[in-house]
Amino acid sequence: MADIAIIGGTGPEGRGLALRWAMAGHHLILGSRDEVRARDAANSLKLIKPGIHVSGHTNRAAIEKSDCVVFSIPYEGLDQAVSDFEDCLSGKLVISVIAPMDFRSGYPKALTVAEGSAAELIQARVPGCIVTSGFQNLSAQDLLKPDTEINGDIIICGDDLESKKFTMELADCIAGLRGVDGGYLGNSKTVEGLTALILYINKQTKSRSTIKLL
Amino acid sequence: MADIAIIGGTGPEGRGLALRWAMAGHHLILGSRDEVRARDAANSLKLIKPGIHVSGHTNRAAIEKSDCVVFSIPYEGLDQAVSDFEDCLSGKLVISVIAPMDFRSGYPKALTVAEGSAAELIQARVPGCIVTSGFQNLSAQDLLKPDTEINGDIIICGDDLESKKFTMELADCIAGLRGVDGGYLGNSKTVEGLTALILYINKQTKSRSTIKLL
Repeated sequence: MADIAIIGGTGPEGRGLALRWAMAGHHLILGSRDEVRARDAANSLKLIKPGIHVSGHTNRAAIEKSDCVVFSIPYEGLDQAVSDFEDCLSGKLVISVIAPMDFRSGYPKALTVAEGSAAELIQARVPGCIVTSGFQNLSAQDLLKPDTEINGDIIICGDDLESKKFTMELADCIAGLRGVDGGYLGNSKTVEGLTALILYINKQTKSRSTIKLL
Repeated sequence: MADIAIIGGTGPEGRGLALRWAMAGHHLILGSRDEVRARDAANSLKLIKPGIHVSGHTNRAAIEKSDCVVFSIPYEGLDQAVSDFEDCLSGKLVISVIAPMDFRSGYPKALTVAEGSAAELIQARVPGCIVTSGFQNLSAQDLLKPDTEINGDIIICGDDLESKKFTMELADCIAGLRGVDGGYLGNSKTVEGLTALILYINKQTKSRSTIKLL
């Protein structure tokens, strides 16, 4: 079982993923700028599912205590966050669950990222870490209901095969989900872009659809 | 029933779509640089399914005879083809089924298009036409077997609602397929990028998967 830090661990997406991974037996460390908020978030998950291993720390302490660091923060804050923790991210597996989006036009629009994708931005800033990406299209609401089975395929991109395999296992360990090898990290652009597309479709059809490969 | 021209109508993808749309009752006009090849392709479809309305003409004649023009050519030739026929494309609905890809690295890689996507390239070059996009991820082999039901969702992007609706109906009229409103034409980038991703996944898993929204 891995020690997994969630940067942005007090947000709904971060808490949702943390809950599901903790339910699968992993040790989760929620990170926040505010240690008290991180601890509160950890305690709130223990109330949902007693017995799970979840703790709360500052983002830096969370990274230092973990093998694997999940970035679950809004894209706008990513560049700054990666710069702040560059020194302690080297050598770790970093998983990006970020989908860069803009809602100003009234509907979700995928943002163009100079590096290609949020995942590639992290890789470009911290060459010494290994980056994979996935889990961008999951409903935080569903993740936070421990008995709700979420049906869908999680497309995982990454250049390092072993890290990609580990990240696919993190998908497989959530009931109803299946990790799918989505190829090299450059494909993350397409998978991140899918989130805006799926949000648009869900808004039109008033549904909460996710993607599946048939 | 519409008069639909297929630019690149002698290629497997163009012939496959033409067969299915002709089976649904539309009048198909296969276009080619070589009129004889276009007629041969039309005749080959009539052998597969007698009684369908398919004819073969030069690309220019095909466009002039149609309400709706489908571009089914390799991305490399798109800019030139659009320039060649700019004068007769104005006022028509143009459907792009093109996914810009590069195979030089040994696996399919989505190409970056300055205009955003192949569909947006057409719209930029011919402001007087209406562009939609879709059908990038279908197997030509399956399309050409008239009794094979292809299960999947066809995500249609476009800025003009009526044209998008018509394009979605072109998906719905093929057995097993469902047209899904994929929002504005800017989303075509993501849908076109999906083709490389799905081809990669199919190669890894030795399957012929397509995408479905659950």
